Amino acid sequence: MSQSDLQKLVHLIAKLPGLGPRSARRVTLHLLKYKESMMLPLAEALKNVAMNIKNCRICGNLDESDPCNICDDIKRDKGVICVVEEVADLWAIERSGNFNGLYHVLGGTLSAMDMRKSESLNIEKLVTRASLGEIYELIIATNATMEGETTAHYITERLKEFEIKITRLAYGLPVGGELDYLDDGTLTAAFKARQIF
Amino acid sequence: MSQSDLQKLVHLIAKLPGLGPRSARRVTLHLLKYKESMMLPLAEALKNVAMNIKNCRICGNLDESDPCNICDDIKRDKGVICVVEEVADLWAIERSGNFNGLYHVLGGTLSAMDMRKSESLNIEKLVTRASLGEIYELIIATNATMEGETTAHYITERLKEFEIKITRLAYGLPVGGELDYLDDGTLTAAFKARQIF
Repeated sequence: MSQSDLQKLVHLIAKLPGLGPRSARRVTLHLLKYKESMMLPLAEALKNVAMNIKNCRICGNLDESDPCNICDDIKRDKGVICVVEEVADLWAIERSGNFNGLYHVLGGTLSAMDMRKSESLNIEKLVTRASLGEIYELIIATNATMEGETTAHYITERLKEFEIKITRLAYGLPVGGELDYLDDGTLTAAFKARQIF
Repeated sequence: MSQSDLQKLVHLIAKLPGLGPRSARRVTLHLLKYKESMMLPLAEALKNVAMNIKNCRICGNLDESDPCNICDDIKRDKGVICVVEEVADLWAIERSGNFNGLYHVLGGTLSAMDMRKSESLNIEKLVTRASLGEIYELIIATNATMEGETTAHYITERLKEFEIKITRLAYGLPVGGELDYLDDGTLTAAFKARQIF
C-alpha cells in the first residue's frame, strides 16, 4: 500500500491524544463506513471550528465570539472570577451548572521543576482584571496537584495588594467515593476540613 | 455554553469508536491548540479521503483507484486469494509483508446467532472469482472466533465444487507468547498442530 491519502489520514488521527496507530486505523475504517453521516460532517466541523474559534481577549476561553459568550453574558455576576488551568476545566464547571460568575483561563500551570515561567501563562491579564476594582471574589480552581497548588499560591501572592477575597475549592471526599479507596492525602484533607453535622 | 460549532465538533468526535465525551473534549482542545499543523490538515485529509476512496469492485478493498492497487499490481500472484473479514485485516497482513497474492474482503462475518445473512457479505463475488478457474489456492484468514469459524466453513462449503485448495491460517502460540498466559483453546490447538523439531 502506497503512502496514500488514506495512510496520511491514519497518521494524522494516530497523533491525537489518547489514540495510536491501531485505534487510528479503526477510527478511519469506521469513518469510511459512514462517509455521509460522519466523515464529511466531521471534516466540515473541523474546518468551521478552526476558522471561527478564537481565544477570548478577556478571559482566555475559546469561543466563536471575542469577548466570549460568558464574558458577554449580562446575566452573569461580573464580581466573581473563577480561575482555571485549561478550557476543559471551564467546560467541566459549566456542566456542573452551579457557577454564575466569570472565568479566567490560565492556559497551564506554574512549576518550579520544569521552569515554566509565569509570563507564558495568562496571569498578567488576571492582575489587570483584578486591578479594575470590580471584583469582590476570586475562586482559584486549579487542579489539586503540586503544580496547581504552586500556581494558586503564586496568584494569591500577586493579587494580595488588591482587596479581593481569594478562595480555593474545598478538598475532601469525592461524592460517592469510598474511604477504603481514598489516598491518604485526600483523607487527611477531608479530616482537617471536617464540618459540624 | 450554547450548542455551538465547537459543541457539534465534540459530539461528532465522541461518536467515533473508542472515544467518548471526555476524550472527545480532550482531542478537540488539542486540535484547537494546533490549528495549522493538525486541525486544518485533518479536515482536509478527511474530505479528500471521503471524496476519493472507493471500494474495489473486485476484492472489496478500500483504495483511491478501482480496481485497487493490489488487484492491479502485475507483480502479485493472481492465483492465490486471501479471504479476510475487514479491510483492517488486509492492512495487518500487508504490514506483515509476507503475502504476495490477492485479497477478498468479506465486510463482516456470518453468525447463526444474530442471523446476519450471507447476502450482506461480499461472498457471491468470491464465488464468481473462484469460478473463473484462475485460482489455485484460497487462504481463509477470518478471525479465530466463533463467527470467523462459521464464515470459514460456509465459504468452504460454497467453493467445494471448484478445484481449489482451501487453506486456513494455523492456530498456535503467538510469537513471544508465554504458555502460562495462554487460554486453554490456544494451548490445545498448539498441541494438536505440533510439528517435528
